[in-house]
Amino acid sequence: MNETQTLARFVADSRWGDIPPVMRHEAKRALLNWMGCAIGGCRDDTVERALAALNEFSGARTSSLIGRHEKMDALHAALINGISSNILDYDDTHLRTVMHPTVPVAAALCALAEHRPVTGAQFIQAFVLGIEVACRVGNAVSPWHYAHGWHISSTCGVFGAAAGAAKLLKLNTQQTAWAFGLAATQASGVREMMGGMGKSYNLGHAARGGLLAAVLAERQFTSSERVLEAPRGFAHVLGHEPQLDELTRGLGETWELAANAYKPYPCGIVLHAAIDACLQLRSEARLDANEIASVAVRMNPLALEITGRTEPASGLESKLSVAHVVAVSILHGLAGVAQFTDACVGEPAVVSLRGKVSTQPDASCDTAAAHVEITLTDGRRLSRHVPHATGSLEKPMTDADIEKKFHELAASSRSECHAWDVIEIAWSLDRLNNAAKFVQAAVPETYSG
Amino acid sequence: MNETQTLARFVADSRWGDIPPVMRHEAKRALLNWMGCAIGGCRDDTVERALAALNEFSGARTSSLIGRHEKMDALHAALINGISSNILDYDDTHLRTVMHPTVPVAAALCALAEHRPVTGAQFIQAFVLGIEVACRVGNAVSPWHYAHGWHISSTCGVFGAAAGAAKLLKLNTQQTAWAFGLAATQASGVREMMGGMGKSYNLGHAARGGLLAAVLAERQFTSSERVLEAPRGFAHVLGHEPQLDELTRGLGETWELAANAYKPYPCGIVLHAAIDACLQLRSEARLDANEIASVAVRMNPLALEITGRTEPASGLESKLSVAHVVAVSILHGLAGVAQFTDACVGEPAVVSLRGKVSTQPDASCDTAAAHVEITLTDGRRLSRHVPHATGSLEKPMTDADIEKKFHELAASSRSECHAWDVIEIAWSLDRLNNAAKFVQAAVPETYSG
Repeated sequence: MNETQTLARFVADSRWGDIPPVMRHEAKRALLNWMGCAIGGCRDDTVERALAALNEFSGARTSSLIGRHEKMDALHAALINGISSNILDYDDTHLRTVMHPTVPVAAALCALAEHRPVTGAQFIQAFVLGIEVACRVGNAVSPWHYAHGWHISSTCGVFGAAAGAAKLLKLNTQQTAWAFGLAATQASGVREMMGGMGKSYNLGHAARGGLLAAVLAERQFTSSERVLEAPRGFAHVLGHEPQLDELTRGLGETWELAANAYKPYPCGIVLHAAIDACLQLRSEARLDANEIASVAVRMNPLALEITGRTEPASGLESKLSVAHVVAVSILHGLAGVAQFTDACVGEPAVVSLRGKVSTQPDASCDTAAAHVEITLTDGRRLSRHVPHATGSLEKPMTDADIEKKFHELAASSRSECHAWDVIEIAWSLDRLNNAAKFVQAAVPETYSG
Repeated sequence: MNETQTLARFVADSRWGDIPPVMRHEAKRALLNWMGCAIGGCRDDTVERALAALNEFSGARTSSLIGRHEKMDALHAALINGISSNILDYDDTHLRTVMHPTVPVAAALCALAEHRPVTGAQFIQAFVLGIEVACRVGNAVSPWHYAHGWHISSTCGVFGAAAGAAKLLKLNTQQTAWAFGLAATQASGVREMMGGMGKSYNLGHAARGGLLAAVLAERQFTSSERVLEAPRGFAHVLGHEPQLDELTRGLGETWELAANAYKPYPCGIVLHAAIDACLQLRSEARLDANEIASVAVRMNPLALEITGRTEPASGLESKLSVAHVVAVSILHGLAGVAQFTDACVGEPAVVSLRGKVSTQPDASCDTAAAHVEITLTDGRRLSRHVPHATGSLEKPMTDADIEKKFHELAASSRSECHAWDVIEIAWSLDRLNNAAKFVQAAVPETYSG
């Protein structure tokens, strides 16, 4: 049996009992983290403009737009929620591939769950399988694929959305393979979109495309049954010397969701250790910004290369500025959504403190580590070394951390959803009779579901 | 100014007077040819299954499905009509790139013309510009792109659909560049889909994606403004050592639509010369199949490599069988849609005559040429050399040929449209106040439009 068929059969034959309890719980963490990101991004211009363009094309409005009053058909809801949840760059990361796997899978499954009722357990199972497929496809073509210019969260995410939707639609092995074929032939997204609205579009596009692939396959719309490994198929056309064994090795024994990380701060992941260090020093020393003479940061040279910007011109640019994250962490005691806005970038106190930050490349530092030394005006020095940032696999976000992040995101947007309701439903998702309640809790008015 | 901007400005600034009369006429030929293909394919299982899956997702049903009673929203209509018109492999070919350029462009524009009224002249202008952009993008990445495994009609067709739709929506240069960016990041389609429903899906996907890109850009959904030439943009990610000057050289002076060819027979283009030869011999010699002892065909070795199949198992396979096309041309005096069905492949007389056909590679033969020699049972020999097949650029289909082909296709489907009405409207398209009349003539009931 070839790789595509093996992966399709794995999805089609999977039973609830095959998903280890620890992965079921990890799924809830990923989904709660994702839902917060979607709520946080739901009022962004990117979403407003996509809605303005697409609203008239919506079919039967079965599916919620997270954080908003509107509904759209399931395909459009997958697209819009995929866009919303990637906007803040706050979603999860499969560190090996730098993919954001939850966005396309969860956006497709939430939209579908309101279109065709499923239980919470079915939802979690489909989600875990979708993540598994997306990440395995990513592993097979990494690292060449992303380095070459492909936006891997989209090009490989579409397979995850297809796999998850195929499972919820109860497709058989052949249909699931067709869904992979139809996902592959929609796999797109170039990195030139980064920094603009096209970036988040790519993620929504993958969510919609994967759902569409499964919906077509359900109606016997045929496709290749070997699209992953075929000479003119995905891995050879969008990859270079792909590792096809990554698609199936240890299938059902190891789980890619276990290697998924959640961000504590909505900025470049290599900056997280420096933020941790500053927040710890601030908390312990009750720092007064007026007493700070200078801040010296030692980080990995590569990490500094992309984050060395000292004078960010916008909220977007500040997400890759070590000087900025140091300044806001010390001044605000926070590095949340509000700290990466244009307004915060221009705050006089932030501008002033940014000017006191110097950086020093240190090849002995890991890319996920940082050393921060603060010199006070009276000559005292405070220093902190953080080898593993919060949110790394070595020091993962706790369930409480994820809840706190969710509250921050819910408060930051005008979504008016009841944060505690969403959190409670997320943790009990495997016991829900109707998974749609999860997404319906995250809109301003709760529907009866 | 970079290539993307130059091409976007060319589209945005183009005036009706910039389109040479000969290209306006060529547009009508391409559109009539395309409409026939769409009618011919409109009842195929591929369309029926796509409709079964997608009908419930349709928004406001503004746009006709060619040859059928149903309407769908403009995005879905672009998808379905794109699928229909590619199914028979009878659509046009931009020979340099082997792209089928009209399908994505015309499918997007017809759907849009019913959504937002435009004149026939605006329609023709947008069509010519769309073809120009699709083919120039194709030229820039050919021949590597297709050889590597990309389904070029989809990956480059999406730019044509975006360009044409951008023109009809009157987008400015910046918006048109964004539409190219959003088209690029949707550019997909692998050749592994060939031979299944995914092949025609790819073309419909490009039509829909290009239209969507323009609709988003109209609402200020931003994107890169240099997606064609950027290091992580289209030409470098989906191409290898691209010829970027092909994007803009001679823009407005030469027209790619002039290099577009129409197929007289719905089968592999390298077989057309052999069909011409057999039809001519049959017509001149009043051949009786019972008197034929053998048929010897000399063709280019490469052409024979892909068409040497002597015992095709299906209508689909017969499209690449030299023995089959020789047999049906001599027996039926035709090589139309009816000659490439499963039923025709199994006809005893066809099977018998196929068995008498032998092939001989001849490196001195052009890929578009053929030499046929028929030996009769009484020892007489009849031979014909065809250097340029009907439908080649050297011997193009006449307007009358295209009309005849349209009649054949209209009769082959159960579309019940009035063929003469469509033909008359096609030839007068530049004088119509409402271009929608063209597509509305090609549905069973004529709407007032």
